[in-house]
Amino acid sequence: MSLPDVAAAHRLELQNFERAILAKQTQIESWFRTQWRHHHAPFYGSVDIRNSGYKLASIDMNLFPGGFNNLNPVFLPLASVAAQDAVERACAEAQSVLMIPENHTRNTFYLQNVYALYSILRHVGLNVRIGTINPEITQITTLETALGDHITLEPVLRQGNRLQLADGFTPCMILLNNDLSGGVPDILQGLEQKLLPPLKAGWTTRRKSTHFHAYNQVAAEFAKLAGIDEWTINPYYEVCSGLDFASHEGENRLADTVERLLQRIQNKYDELGIQDKPFVIVKADAGTYGMGVMSVHSADEVRGLNRKKRNKMAKIKEGLEVSEVIVQEGIYTYETLHGATAEPVVYMMDRFVIGGFYRVHEGRGPDENLNAMGMHFVPLHCNIVSPETEITEEDAASKREFQPWEQLGIVQTENVSQASDCESVRLYVYGVLARLSLLAAAIELENMPEIAV
Amino acid sequence: MSLPDVAAAHRLELQNFERAILAKQTQIESWFRTQWRHHHAPFYGSVDIRNSGYKLASIDMNLFPGGFNNLNPVFLPLASVAAQDAVERACAEAQSVLMIPENHTRNTFYLQNVYALYSILRHVGLNVRIGTINPEITQITTLETALGDHITLEPVLRQGNRLQLADGFTPCMILLNNDLSGGVPDILQGLEQKLLPPLKAGWTTRRKSTHFHAYNQVAAEFAKLAGIDEWTINPYYEVCSGLDFASHEGENRLADTVERLLQRIQNKYDELGIQDKPFVIVKADAGTYGMGVMSVHSADEVRGLNRKKRNKMAKIKEGLEVSEVIVQEGIYTYETLHGATAEPVVYMMDRFVIGGFYRVHEGRGPDENLNAMGMHFVPLHCNIVSPETEITEEDAASKREFQPWEQLGIVQTENVSQASDCESVRLYVYGVLARLSLLAAAIELENMPEIAV
Repeated sequence: MSLPDVAAAHRLELQNFERAILAKQTQIESWFRTQWRHHHAPFYGSVDIRNSGYKLASIDMNLFPGGFNNLNPVFLPLASVAAQDAVERACAEAQSVLMIPENHTRNTFYLQNVYALYSILRHVGLNVRIGTINPEITQITTLETALGDHITLEPVLRQGNRLQLADGFTPCMILLNNDLSGGVPDILQGLEQKLLPPLKAGWTTRRKSTHFHAYNQVAAEFAKLAGIDEWTINPYYEVCSGLDFASHEGENRLADTVERLLQRIQNKYDELGIQDKPFVIVKADAGTYGMGVMSVHSADEVRGLNRKKRNKMAKIKEGLEVSEVIVQEGIYTYETLHGATAEPVVYMMDRFVIGGFYRVHEGRGPDENLNAMGMHFVPLHCNIVSPETEITEEDAASKREFQPWEQLGIVQTENVSQASDCESVRLYVYGVLARLSLLAAAIELENMPEIAV
Repeated sequence: MSLPDVAAAHRLELQNFERAILAKQTQIESWFRTQWRHHHAPFYGSVDIRNSGYKLASIDMNLFPGGFNNLNPVFLPLASVAAQDAVERACAEAQSVLMIPENHTRNTFYLQNVYALYSILRHVGLNVRIGTINPEITQITTLETALGDHITLEPVLRQGNRLQLADGFTPCMILLNNDLSGGVPDILQGLEQKLLPPLKAGWTTRRKSTHFHAYNQVAAEFAKLAGIDEWTINPYYEVCSGLDFASHEGENRLADTVERLLQRIQNKYDELGIQDKPFVIVKADAGTYGMGVMSVHSADEVRGLNRKKRNKMAKIKEGLEVSEVIVQEGIYTYETLHGATAEPVVYMMDRFVIGGFYRVHEGRGPDENLNAMGMHFVPLHCNIVSPETEITEEDAASKREFQPWEQLGIVQTENVSQASDCESVRLYVYGVLARLSLLAAAIELENMPEIAV
């Protein structure tokens, strides 16, 4: 692939940033190695990155990523090695893994993701079975994926404090690919088997604000190490709770928060001579998949919310009510691929970057969320849609597409000054940003109490 | 690439073997994981595999592999991750590595290998410098590799019990890519820095027979696990010492050993109904790079050695005298690529297979050593010659070539019975055999005393 273009006005800023990172590559990688001795990397994760040239950051960290089938298959061995490392740490003698995916069964692109994850684990010689906690699936069910592969879902049974399948299969490790937006089902509570990621990583208990609190610590330390202004990698945010979008409850407080944040951003823009108009993203503090997300340019916008927007914000996945939001500094996306806005998405397994792709959308502006509800991915090679949606033919004809990376951002040049904006450097820098978020997630999980059972 | 053909007469035997391995894949990989908790994998290694369909084994294990530049560059990230794991274990906080290659400076293909290794380590953000212990290099010297890359060699200095470069660079880890055939130089003895692989892995002290002794243990355990006859993966061997090829000393004892071994092989061939004529390989017990190697079909052949053959056997790399040989069961190579005999070579970093290629030679028979002295590799893409030789134009025109693997032998099929002789299965099986040798090398090194200083 050729890299997306960066707007000419911001190309130099991006190059300067990349050079700053590259100049400290040895120290950065050594720092990461040290961090991973003190913090356990989550089993897997994906991040969405925004790149305006003058500011780059991952604005979301998903601990139950879908979309593994979207990665370049050439990185499969790397993903397998990383997964093996993680499985070994969880259960030293593990021969088998039970996967528990989301309950979507008609979204064949999500099923393709399940198949990809299954393959990654299979490829290190693990015996992998796919269990389901979907109450509608009461017997062994084989489903066809978007690309014509097949996966077999087996209802999981509870036997004492263990999960098992009908034939008694009860491995010591269970891999969740279900983000628990609808709550933690009884059947998953109090298991003696090792559950990865842990229940507390699910959206029942996880809060974006807790993640970004941990990210503050990581970003500050990293910025010092790399000799950069922390702001260039860390968006401002505030939390606003006690909201009820349906009844306009808390609307003024939200507007005040938006106003305050916009002003802080404007101040920083003024300091750096940035001409852009500040905006913020308002999103559910416990949410995922781009639902309950709004791009806001002025406090008035949240005061005068129409019914449609209020409805959009009021409920997210699995009908969860939104009463707490995070108001996060928006970062312009100045990367375009064939004229369409393009956002990098980076996938990690254990502490390693194992691939990534660009989310490309023709109809969206540089200050809009490309992962918003109603957006679907055009199948391009082996793409998936966002898992909560059931794909329709109409969706499939939309203008969203995925561009998988063909490399992993390995730095090829010795001489930092030669390192102009080449593909390997840009992908490497994304990988650094992604791992900062992964580290923040590790710290976030350490600081969370286990779920009481 | 398309796989080499396997002779029709032996195709079914190979498929049966592959299916047997595949049927136990989960148990095999779990067994390897358990083994690596008890044994430390060498930093890197490469093996030569022979495949007759009815018997497959690696017949040599190199702990200082050249030829990294010969691997498919797509596997570089995997090699880097594996190398990082090994470096971390050696020195938890390592930011830098000092590499010490062989003393060959005119062999630009070997230099290309050094560049490839250097790149693998650089890519995880390690600061890598290349030291040299070549007495002819007394100042910093930049050399061009076969493909036009550049490497800088810096003379290493001894400061107390540490190696350093002129500017004081003295990392905690030193990576040897020098097999110490000429003895352990004083400058490397008694270092407080971590040397990988350890000095005792060099050919000054290492013996092939010790490796195969450890391999016996590994092969027996593996054969039991996989439910196969151990003989199918383990060549017979005997050691013969006190030889002096120049003076015919010990020739009769060698002939007796050869005769005994040929008879054992014939007995096994009779038992299994194999029509081939047994042969053995006579090779220096402390040797490498295919020097001091002879293919023998009858005891008479070693009795009547002419001057040329005696000279060939008498000395190996760096003029080392051969007084001890290993007589090893020969395995026919029934793989051909475009009509030429093809032998798989597998590369490993830490405990992972990171690539491989086929060594292809048109002029050789199925019972000859394709890595023999005087054989050179035709540069094909990014090939290297064997490191001890200085390449000439004449050499470059010979008919040796390398065919790098395009995948790592990841098993794609669920159903073992569907697993006909497809590429991924064959490469996976090679990778299993290679890791058996790697495990044997780990045990071999554990059992060796450290070098006294």
